[in-house]
Amino acid sequence: MLLFGGDYNPEQWDAPTWAEDVALMREARVNAATVGVFSWSCIEPREGSYRFDWLDATFERLHNAGVAVILATPTASPPPWFSLAHPDALPVRADGTRLVHGSRDTYCAAAPSYRQAAARVATKLAERYAGHPALVLWHVHNEYGTMCWCDHAATGFRTWLQQRYGPAQQGLDELNEAWGTAFWSQRYGDWEEVLPPRATQWLANPSQTLDFRRFWSSELLRAFVEQRDAIRAHTPAIPVTTNFMLSDTPVLDLWEWGREVDVVAIDHYPNSRGSSAYDQIALAADMARSINQGRPWLVMEQAASTTVEDHAVVHRPPGRTLLDSLAYIAHGSDSALFFQWRASRAGAEMYHSAMVPHAGPDTRIFREIRSLGHALEDLNEVSGSTTDAEVAIVLDFDSWWAIEARRVLPARVQYLDGVRADHRAVTFAGHLCDFVPADGDFSRYKLVIVSNTYVLSDEAAHGMHQYVRNGGCMIVTCLSGVVDSSNTVRLGGYPALLRSLLGVRVEEFHPLARGELVPLCGGGYGSVWSERLEAHGADVLDRYETGDLAGGPAITGRAAGSGYAWYVSTRLSDERNNLLVLDALAAAGITPALAKLGPAVHGLLRRKGSGHSWQFWLNYGDTTVDVPTRGYDLLLHRPVPARVELLPGAAVVVRQDGAP
Amino acid sequence: MLLFGGDYNPEQWDAPTWAEDVALMREARVNAATVGVFSWSCIEPREGSYRFDWLDATFERLHNAGVAVILATPTASPPPWFSLAHPDALPVRADGTRLVHGSRDTYCAAAPSYRQAAARVATKLAERYAGHPALVLWHVHNEYGTMCWCDHAATGFRTWLQQRYGPAQQGLDELNEAWGTAFWSQRYGDWEEVLPPRATQWLANPSQTLDFRRFWSSELLRAFVEQRDAIRAHTPAIPVTTNFMLSDTPVLDLWEWGREVDVVAIDHYPNSRGSSAYDQIALAADMARSINQGRPWLVMEQAASTTVEDHAVVHRPPGRTLLDSLAYIAHGSDSALFFQWRASRAGAEMYHSAMVPHAGPDTRIFREIRSLGHALEDLNEVSGSTTDAEVAIVLDFDSWWAIEARRVLPARVQYLDGVRADHRAVTFAGHLCDFVPADGDFSRYKLVIVSNTYVLSDEAAHGMHQYVRNGGCMIVTCLSGVVDSSNTVRLGGYPALLRSLLGVRVEEFHPLARGELVPLCGGGYGSVWSERLEAHGADVLDRYETGDLAGGPAITGRAAGSGYAWYVSTRLSDERNNLLVLDALAAAGITPALAKLGPAVHGLLRRKGSGHSWQFWLNYGDTTVDVPTRGYDLLLHRPVPARVELLPGAAVVVRQDGAP
Amino acid sequence: MLLFGGDYNPEQWDAPTWAEDVALMREARVNAATVGVFSWSCIEPREGSYRFDWLDATFERLHNAGVAVILATPTASPPPWFSLAHPDALPVRADGTRLVHGSRDTYCAAAPSYRQAAARVATKLAERYAGHPALVLWHVHNEYGTMCWCDHAATGFRTWLQQRYGPAQQGLDELNEAWGTAFWSQRYGDWEEVLPPRATQWLANPSQTLDFRRFWSSELLRAFVEQRDAIRAHTPAIPVTTNFMLSDTPVLDLWEWGREVDVVAIDHYPNSRGSSAYDQIALAADMARSINQGRPWLVMEQAASTTVEDHAVVHRPPGRTLLDSLAYIAHGSDSALFFQWRASRAGAEMYHSAMVPHAGPDTRIFREIRSLGHALEDLNEVSGSTTDAEVAIVLDFDSWWAIEARRVLPARVQYLDGVRADHRAVTFAGHLCDFVPADGDFSRYKLVIVSNTYVLSDEAAHGMHQYVRNGGCMIVTCLSGVVDSSNTVRLGGYPALLRSLLGVRVEEFHPLARGELVPLCGGGYGSVWSERLEAHGADVLDRYETGDLAGGPAITGRAAGSGYAWYVSTRLSDERNNLLVLDALAAAGITPALAKLGPAVHGLLRRKGSGHSWQFWLNYGDTTVDVPTRGYDLLLHRPVPARVELLPGAAVVVRQDGAP
Repeated sequence: MLLFGGDYNPEQWDAPTWAEDVALMREARVNAATVGVFSWSCIEPREGSYRFDWLDATFERLHNAGVAVILATPTASPPPWFSLAHPDALPVRADGTRLVHGSRDTYCAAAPSYRQAAARVATKLAERYAGHPALVLWHVHNEYGTMCWCDHAATGFRTWLQQRYGPAQQGLDELNEAWGTAFWSQRYGDWEEVLPPRATQWLANPSQTLDFRRFWSSELLRAFVEQRDAIRAHTPAIPVTTNFMLSDTPVLDLWEWGREVDVVAIDHYPNSRGSSAYDQIALAADMARSINQGRPWLVMEQAASTTVEDHAVVHRPPGRTLLDSLAYIAHGSDSALFFQWRASRAGAEMYHSAMVPHAGPDTRIFREIRSLGHALEDLNEVSGSTTDAEVAIVLDFDSWWAIEARRVLPARVQYLDGVRADHRAVTFAGHLCDFVPADGDFSRYKLVIVSNTYVLSDEAAHGMHQYVRNGGCMIVTCLSGVVDSSNTVRLGGYPALLRSLLGVRVEEFHPLARGELVPLCGGGYGSVWSERLEAHGADVLDRYETGDLAGGPAITGRAAGSGYAWYVSTRLSDERNNLLVLDALAAAGITPALAKLGPAVHGLLRRKGSGHSWQFWLNYGDTTVDVPTRGYDLLLHRPVPARVELLPGAAVVVRQDGAP
Repeated sequence: MLLFGGDYNPEQWDAPTWAEDVALMREARVNAATVGVFSWSCIEPREGSYRFDWLDATFERLHNAGVAVILATPTASPPPWFSLAHPDALPVRADGTRLVHGSRDTYCAAAPSYRQAAARVATKLAERYAGHPALVLWHVHNEYGTMCWCDHAATGFRTWLQQRYGPAQQGLDELNEAWGTAFWSQRYGDWEEVLPPRATQWLANPSQTLDFRRFWSSELLRAFVEQRDAIRAHTPAIPVTTNFMLSDTPVLDLWEWGREVDVVAIDHYPNSRGSSAYDQIALAADMARSINQGRPWLVMEQAASTTVEDHAVVHRPPGRTLLDSLAYIAHGSDSALFFQWRASRAGAEMYHSAMVPHAGPDTRIFREIRSLGHALEDLNEVSGSTTDAEVAIVLDFDSWWAIEARRVLPARVQYLDGVRADHRAVTFAGHLCDFVPADGDFSRYKLVIVSNTYVLSDEAAHGMHQYVRNGGCMIVTCLSGVVDSSNTVRLGGYPALLRSLLGVRVEEFHPLARGELVPLCGGGYGSVWSERLEAHGADVLDRYETGDLAGGPAITGRAAGSGYAWYVSTRLSDERNNLLVLDALAAAGITPALAKLGPAVHGLLRRKGSGHSWQFWLNYGDTTVDVPTRGYDLLLHRPVPARVELLPGAAVVVRQDGAP
Repeated sequence: MLLFGGDYNPEQWDAPTWAEDVALMREARVNAATVGVFSWSCIEPREGSYRFDWLDATFERLHNAGVAVILATPTASPPPWFSLAHPDALPVRADGTRLVHGSRDTYCAAAPSYRQAAARVATKLAERYAGHPALVLWHVHNEYGTMCWCDHAATGFRTWLQQRYGPAQQGLDELNEAWGTAFWSQRYGDWEEVLPPRATQWLANPSQTLDFRRFWSSELLRAFVEQRDAIRAHTPAIPVTTNFMLSDTPVLDLWEWGREVDVVAIDHYPNSRGSSAYDQIALAADMARSINQGRPWLVMEQAASTTVEDHAVVHRPPGRTLLDSLAYIAHGSDSALFFQWRASRAGAEMYHSAMVPHAGPDTRIFREIRSLGHALEDLNEVSGSTTDAEVAIVLDFDSWWAIEARRVLPARVQYLDGVRADHRAVTFAGHLCDFVPADGDFSRYKLVIVSNTYVLSDEAAHGMHQYVRNGGCMIVTCLSGVVDSSNTVRLGGYPALLRSLLGVRVEEFHPLARGELVPLCGGGYGSVWSERLEAHGADVLDRYETGDLAGGPAITGRAAGSGYAWYVSTRLSDERNNLLVLDALAAAGITPALAKLGPAVHGLLRRKGSGHSWQFWLNYGDTTVDVPTRGYDLLLHRPVPARVELLPGAAVVVRQDGAP
């Protein structure tokens, strides 16, 4: 079944509203509600004193209405009493500012008193609701992602470092080597001297900074696992998840986290306007699916209408809620869940859009929600089905963190921009695209794009060599393979361990100025970054046309074993990148399953299972298109003999028998 | 008499300069000087040890020169000894940074030791100068407006909250309800947990933030009243004021403050260039007059020349000092006072312009000051006279604070921009415009504009219904009536309590992107904000032409009782707003008293009293105009039979007999 | 001999690399290496425990390879143990944030424990390496320039102030007068009340701020002198230097510092693109030479390739390393030293360019370094020779600090922009330009430009009068002579003490808005700043064409004694300034030694000595030029009979016999 519903916060409302909630949920075909996300102060109004009456009643009300409960632990927002009882557990910024309650997430997740309190309230909830028939899923915490620089964080960091580098003097020697502490006289003589990268005079040590990011991903994961295990002890059969934010500045290494959740769930608030909203949805969905190892995953939060960004407000245009929800499902989601059911009257997010807006159910928004609920009922059969992809892009959090560390690289390079551009090119060509870790199993794919994979371990480099030699096609883009896992440069020319495979050597980085474009002889241009590149065995496929690098190689290619590997030494303009990716897809022998009907119409053979397959056609453009397909139209409940007319903003889902 | 003069700081100068001061003041016809504003360290060089000799001498010198003394209490700048003696009374920012002396205003006004020291020095001054014939006005403190987040502030805030919501658990329950603490687990279990909105992880609670602004306006007012009452005990017949800043980010609720001062005084440093400087002056002057309940008020500070802004320097062009001073007087001011008499040689404001600049009296600036002094002598007869207006705009500090709270509303809306645009439209139409509180007495006006009145109490809404039913005309603009006094959304569709009156329902906010303009079918466009609006009984007067709301109502109107009410769901472009306001003025039966001679020429029948009325004509344009008027030209001392030629930058004041 | 080499950090590398280093240094003709700059944690791994084995070995290795050692004291970067042992010596920002290790420069240079530790390690090094034949130069610390606001800084500041103003109450009275503490009630009653300008409510006192900058220049100099004297006690014959940064926001008064070093050395990272890189090099080189009293000086650090700026990356184009190095030498440098020899693999500056890049010696960069080394061998004969100049520009750090103090002046004026523009005009005219302190000896020059010399002492003003009366030509630009040494305005009209000399009086500042340009009647325009100027005896040479000052004087000139003095009341556009400077050069009887062959070709008769002179021709343009010269081409080892063809990016050095 496709889950449909949203965060539900009855503690903000009164009894008449509760009654209306249940009626409206039934009307809209809501089948799941997330409760408890921010209820700590209601569940434990004083330390150690718990109240479940209101939550019991909520369970009953929802259960009687046929709405399943996704039960959240409320640990993302300690109550005000926590600040006064455990001042040492309040979060501290890098500059020493200690934050207090008044918002949410005011804790240091490395503080023992916080961790104990969090595990305690999770256990209480598990004890209480184990066996309740409404309970279908646990949702631990909310949007893990806060770091802290306090003394507890320092202690935790040292413990993590000792696990990585070894304890005692030998471990410290390893750390000094890994962090390059010979530079700027940073050699540590005692473990007590090792601190988080707190406010300091100039630039911080980039290896320390990278390890601190890794530590926090790991420390937060430990906090999650503690709650998960406490819960599992009481409800071993109920799956446990947490909701990931696919942030532009990620705190979690989602490959590690993906292994510890029973199902991946994401919050997603696209802020692109027009047809490019689809690119953003496809990117997030492909990441979520890949992190969940290809299995169906969940959209835990999306907006019913406005998305608020600091500098831009984005409004989902009328009709878009259905189209976007189907896009997630086409890419493997088994849900359409929202934050939140009913718009809050007060609090910092009082204008966060909701399924039931302030103006009530007699509104465009609620009418669209109701339509979506009815449509999803028609699509339930796709739930549990899976997808497959022949192309993958490397997604590497170490590289993300290391590239974007402040002022280390001699340019402002955004890791995700490169990944996004390559994903856009694959999507533009009509292909579903997986993501894969740098040291992951590439053998399932015919083409792998290694985008800006700046941090490259020996193992990952070895796997890439193997993959190409065994017949894989691979595009490697600039800034890949530069440093090892310690964030230390590999010498002798970039991209170091990949040089022999690619047949190239990068002698020098040649970052471009903001807004600077360098034309290529073969058309299009590069921006952001360029490199003084030499071909040593590779064919030169394109050259820089002007500038200090004029005449030098920009793109190369080389057959290696039974495969082929490209190197791209700049960030290509979209049209140029599209051409390169199309060439590589052709070389890899990949052809799209469905015809391409224009840049904004996405025809996707997305999901397969139990003897069926389902085509999703989504029209993000502004003209009607005539779609060649046949099968059974699930939304209109009628056979499609040969063609379907698809209006702007419309979608069609066609069931076909047999595996494609 | 019109007060003419400025801040006078003899403590910065020597005896020969004092002698020159008196001579120059006489020459320029200065009749008032403000002394003591920043003299605390001279008056009380060590804690508890007072020196008045220099101030006694200043009183004598000024008195002998016929210059009245406006005596300030020096409490806006505690001396350095105060920092060392009372470190707990130093101000603390939201992030915990404690500020020290080295500038001014380095105190927490909620700190008992500060309040005692301030009241003590005020008392000493009152004891000393009670009965001195030169003393005409008390000027308490300077530009009240600093907030603090320290523990004293926390204590004061809790006390204020207990007065608002009630003490003990019941008051705390009320607070929890009012602040919506069910969201994000912010429920307070004990009064001790309630804090100022200090640095926290994400967004602060908007109701807490609004109450904190209210608390500070109130706490600062208590500090003022303590000094005022201490002074009044000694000089019951001398009026007491303080100088308000009409800031873009106000700290004081001036309606509350206006009731506690004997006369309203403002500091005003317009930073507009060209002819729009008049709009800024008119806005400030109309606010000051309204806050003073229509009576003559004072310009306590203006600049003789350059105004320094952080990112822009604005220079009063030659001749403008007289024109601007007359503009304030035309709008009801009884003074032209400056900061300051003589430009300081040192200190942070050494380049603040002054009546006597660094270059001395043989300067353009001093010559213009002298001309102004002579002109004001000719205008003394207008002092004490009043004005009246048939139009008013609602000015609401709660709405100002709530709208501009960081990142609550899904767009950056500037409250004052809306008020300013409406005021500009009324001024453009040639009318004097009052301001009125949201729950004020509208019955004096034929047209009231309710601009962005986001916070709307039950009482205020009731008054608006009454006003229209009884025949008033009212324009309500977008974002009005959204929340109640607790900053909690009123449900069921905006503008909630005004829906039945206006015959509309706003279903959804549709904020516009930065720079986005939405054309209206009737011409012009909206910006910043728009709303999905439905007419329920209202006539649709204009519609959105494009965008997601295309075809939907933008402006509506509805007859209600014997009045009429408009609703405007966007921020209109100036020309469109001018048309709307002209329509409304016509509907309300208001016609301008004087002909309109172009956009930059302001002919104002401003002041009336003792059997006379005075016309002010101000030419802010760059062409000469021929003004039809008759009466007696006060500045040129001659009758005006029918017309006067008004050069660019010039002004004429014409006395007419009898009420107009 | 010209020193050629760079910072060498063997502690970051292993034995095989050391061997390669020596071979490559020989290959590139490296003759000097700076060691120890950031080696504190290697030299003193625990407090009081020293290790010199690795440094001994480095000395031997370099010495055996014929590479001289420039030995640095490592005190710019205390090891992590220092933070834990001396937490009171960590630096504190104005807002109270205490910084910790993790970068470099994490100390307060006023903290006794830091100063003792620094002097101790310097002494140990001097004891150890006194008499070592490889040692040719001491390099104390690195890039002095960090300030601190902690309690040690407060104590040091008070001590410095008592030396300036006198101790006890009388000194405090002087301070109160100098700082103008009568403004804003800042009068100090006790020395303990005097603090650094820490975070305060509004604007800080500008006199306090200026004295704080002076204090830090002086306090850092005391720290330098302590180390220097400790070293000299052991190696009296070895010169001692430190490397100055020519920052846009200087911390050191380099005139004071220049007197205390044995030779001036600078770090220089030009960030201009294209041919204007030369202007930046010439400016820095002329400053360095002047601070070194005309004697040969050293480039201690330059980049081999990319320069990293926060918002821009600048890449030295191919071939430019030689050209730029010759430009420094043409302007008097006796070295071409780089940061650093070998690019670091890790740490905050892992992408700082180096002589041996990450890709190794088989690279464009190293090949250019090798070419440079060989070229410098051919130029050794110029070392020790000197230059002379007939024009000088005043460089005044007090004015720099005072003008740029935040929000004091009513505009954002950049001191260096004015100096830079004037220097550009002199360079454009083909002349070498010295810098001179405001109270320096002007008598060596025929033309002196007094650029924005805002702070002017009585002595300096007197010297300027004398200079002009005795026949000197002088251009004074706007904002000069405004305040005295206490940062207190001199009254009666700017530029005060220079008014009678210049025959002018500035009545009012008239700062221009960002981007505002005011045309002048004589062509060109002014920007940034303008002034209401009256001529009182001067000839008006140009006038403002529009704006409030239209028709008023912009540029004046006046014969005084046997000299002539110009006054410029705005910041002139480049072309206009070029014309003015050309006029002044002609009036002063200065003609360029060499023909001018276009704006980007710099033909300089730069160095003279031992019976020879050397012409340097540098082509920063993009066309080939035909240079008329004769003598001996040092780089091509051949006589030049009459002309040399100079390709774009190329340089020629021609030796001529006899003084020119």
